[in-house]
Amino acid sequence: MRYIKLCFVCLPLFALAQQSPVEQVRKHVQTHTREIVQSFQEFLSIPNIASDMPNIERNAAWIAHQMRVLQLDKVQLLYPATKGMPPAVYGEIMTPGATKTLIFYAHYDGQPVDSTKWAAGLHPFKPSLYTDALQNGGKPLAYDQTSYEPQWRIYGRGASDDKAGVMAILQAYAALKANGIAPKVNIKFFFEGEEEAGSDHLHEILQANQALLQGDLWVICDGPVHQSGQQQIVFGVRGDTHLEITVFGPKRPLHSGHYGNWVPNPGMLLSKLLASMKDASGKVLVKGFYDDVTPLSAAEKAALAKVPPVESALQKELGIAQVENPKLSLAEAINQPSLNINGITVAGTGKYSANVIPTKAVASIDLRLVMGNDWKRQQDKVIQHIQSQGYFVTSKEPTDEERMRYPKIAMVVRSGGYNAQKTSMQHPLAQKVVDAVTTAQGKVVLTPTLGGSLPLFVFEQYLKTPPITVPIANHDNNQHAENENIRLKNLFEGIVTFASIMLLPK
Amino acid sequence: MRYIKLCFVCLPLFALAQQSPVEQVRKHVQTHTREIVQSFQEFLSIPNIASDMPNIERNAAWIAHQMRVLQLDKVQLLYPATKGMPPAVYGEIMTPGATKTLIFYAHYDGQPVDSTKWAAGLHPFKPSLYTDALQNGGKPLAYDQTSYEPQWRIYGRGASDDKAGVMAILQAYAALKANGIAPKVNIKFFFEGEEEAGSDHLHEILQANQALLQGDLWVICDGPVHQSGQQQIVFGVRGDTHLEITVFGPKRPLHSGHYGNWVPNPGMLLSKLLASMKDASGKVLVKGFYDDVTPLSAAEKAALAKVPPVESALQKELGIAQVENPKLSLAEAINQPSLNINGITVAGTGKYSANVIPTKAVASIDLRLVMGNDWKRQQDKVIQHIQSQGYFVTSKEPTDEERMRYPKIAMVVRSGGYNAQKTSMQHPLAQKVVDAVTTAQGKVVLTPTLGGSLPLFVFEQYLKTPPITVPIANHDNNQHAENENIRLKNLFEGIVTFASIMLLPK
Repeated sequence: MRYIKLCFVCLPLFALAQQSPVEQVRKHVQTHTREIVQSFQEFLSIPNIASDMPNIERNAAWIAHQMRVLQLDKVQLLYPATKGMPPAVYGEIMTPGATKTLIFYAHYDGQPVDSTKWAAGLHPFKPSLYTDALQNGGKPLAYDQTSYEPQWRIYGRGASDDKAGVMAILQAYAALKANGIAPKVNIKFFFEGEEEAGSDHLHEILQANQALLQGDLWVICDGPVHQSGQQQIVFGVRGDTHLEITVFGPKRPLHSGHYGNWVPNPGMLLSKLLASMKDASGKVLVKGFYDDVTPLSAAEKAALAKVPPVESALQKELGIAQVENPKLSLAEAINQPSLNINGITVAGTGKYSANVIPTKAVASIDLRLVMGNDWKRQQDKVIQHIQSQGYFVTSKEPTDEERMRYPKIAMVVRSGGYNAQKTSMQHPLAQKVVDAVTTAQGKVVLTPTLGGSLPLFVFEQYLKTPPITVPIANHDNNQHAENENIRLKNLFEGIVTFASIMLLPK
Repeated sequence: MRYIKLCFVCLPLFALAQQSPVEQVRKHVQTHTREIVQSFQEFLSIPNIASDMPNIERNAAWIAHQMRVLQLDKVQLLYPATKGMPPAVYGEIMTPGATKTLIFYAHYDGQPVDSTKWAAGLHPFKPSLYTDALQNGGKPLAYDQTSYEPQWRIYGRGASDDKAGVMAILQAYAALKANGIAPKVNIKFFFEGEEEAGSDHLHEILQANQALLQGDLWVICDGPVHQSGQQQIVFGVRGDTHLEITVFGPKRPLHSGHYGNWVPNPGMLLSKLLASMKDASGKVLVKGFYDDVTPLSAAEKAALAKVPPVESALQKELGIAQVENPKLSLAEAINQPSLNINGITVAGTGKYSANVIPTKAVASIDLRLVMGNDWKRQQDKVIQHIQSQGYFVTSKEPTDEERMRYPKIAMVVRSGGYNAQKTSMQHPLAQKVVDAVTTAQGKVVLTPTLGGSLPLFVFEQYLKTPPITVPIANHDNNQHAENENIRLKNLFEGIVTFASIMLLPK
């Protein structure tokens, strides 16, 4: 009820004239929660898996309709050259006399979903309203309310990742328009429909629409706010690539009694190989692993020093008594390249365990990259490390002849990958965004890089335009998993944040 | 055609009188291949999974019927006290004046089977005849033949493991009886129906029938002949027990980008833990692992020195350029306790790989034991090793409080287990068996222990009677797997071998 009270008690009409445009937007949001949340319900009810083209096109049509209601110009669907792939939805507002153009990005597709894994009463495409997060004891509410409290949550696929981004951007402009506040920069809207499927065709859209998509800065709305709960602005992402390593035992599974401690066990070989890759403090022992890293700039170091500490709260939340290297904060750690085991498969365990010497052992390795790293070169270094451990490395199943020649054989399959991307923290327009958001939200965490990876290099590569990311979702949003949700305060304040960016000076 | 030729060319009637009883049995087998193989077909056609009681009882009835045809005494089904479990089938022939009693053991149940995994044209319970092993280019034959060649194979569940054992023992006695050759010892027949399901109720049968099952030596027919193709007599088995080790990462799966190289990865922790358990030459580094081992006797050492070398042929067959410790022969290696990884499960690999820091990593560990080892003490040593690596060891999922107190936590679940068993190679009756089989087969490999494990301790524990094992199946019989088969020569010579044992002097 706090928002409604404010409306009647604190904001008599004469005060409105003195409010900043951002405060006018916040007020607008507080008095229009019903319109916003009910429009969001309509949007969330359209299934949005990238491979489900009929529903993807319903989503795109719904967004285009909202754009036309807002009287955006050049509203259109931008299809990639490859047939049958999701379109991006485009619209723009050009401002007479503007010297800068911002392009706002979010994606309307969501992660594939298994509705049976969702909690009772929830369904990914039947959004539902709760008094709080389930893990905090939240109770269901009728979706239709007169007004909506900021601590309430909406559960549904895309509620945070990333229909909330689409919604925040569109509603930010709607709030400006409703209050007669004109932007001073040109604004372009670009909503992708294939992000969760890997953005494999995004570059086709960018390439084919270079003139339409000219601009000075991409502002990406995706992901969660900082773990401290504060708004963050993120200047980069780590790159990413993978290796799958298979080491070999006997050609057929052997009885672990008849042959155990004579025939080599591939599970033990793989364990020794993986163990050789990192020391007890998490330092990667692969030769040259850290050699290419571009040192952090002074601005980045200063930003890292200001990141609010979240470590002990996170350790408690995750049940971790000690992190890999207690000398590094989380923010410092993700500014280094990493080597992680995503999975290991060796025969079976538990009820699938059998008395065998397995034929092979497989590990999937994730390599995250920072500026300076090249994803193929980073793969090479790991492969050279495997060779340094006495392995013959091949990209195919070993032949009988290779098996008899080499005591240790590793098949290494390289995945694709891409490098890290960073926009300078000194970028003038990005600094204006920081100023605007800081004014709107009181304080902002500046993050040199996200630990995760997004193919943001495409905007630089195909359009020569740098991106920055302004995420709005709550940190506990269950992104990519069952019971995805958004806390309404994050949606409401996200609208305010994006309105503040649209109001940059020319 | 060799057998038939022998029949007509080499063995005119006048020679028969001069043949040894064993040669008479061999001759009988050679001239009765049709009866033997067709009776075997009937037996193999009855499904024999221990949990399938209606069919198990059909198998037991079939065996009991054969015993009655052979005019054995006291033919009966021995049910365990626990209801609904497979019976053993018992029969005996007492010999007036005999001072020794041999008890012949085989099992009629088979490993669970997935018929869809069998090669085209094969079915586990529709036995089929081939000119050779499939991997040697064997071709199908009509099952019904006038006579049967020794290199032919029968494919079907139980063809080698272990209906061949039941068949060889019954047919050995049948051959003696048909030729009017009287045994000089008492013979008891005991065919189990629950071996492949773990023999969990065997002790109930032994306990309830101690008088009936009195004897001087159990002669077990199960498993394959030596890898060299020679008949072997085995004096012991390794013991066996297992541990399942789970180490823990974050309470929920984390994005390997956002948290990679800050939150500890349980796959890496487990790899380091497993790697610490063995050195590069396969020596187990667990403190005291070899301390309890009873040294081999002079007779056992002498026997090991005479085991034919199979190592280089096996390495080629298995595609292994180097074994764990090239200084040890296979026979020497399996006379030591072992530690083997049966399986490792950490999240997913291949198409199931995801960009996560997994929540846990699980390894299933197989410990084989030799004389002197105690299975619980051997488990304790491994657990102490895990503790020595800095782990808090628990038998349950860790609590939140434990997670915050201990940097490294291992949940260790102990399985049941049993110790090794050995019968002295000097045992007088066993030595007579060795002499008889050596005479019948020309040469015999004496094996102090099988690498694998059988609960043979039950015969010593409940009946105070030692066991030895005389396996007959071909080494490449696909025991426990799809396409199980017996080479007919192994069945035919198995009959001769068992007849030779039944003819021990009183």
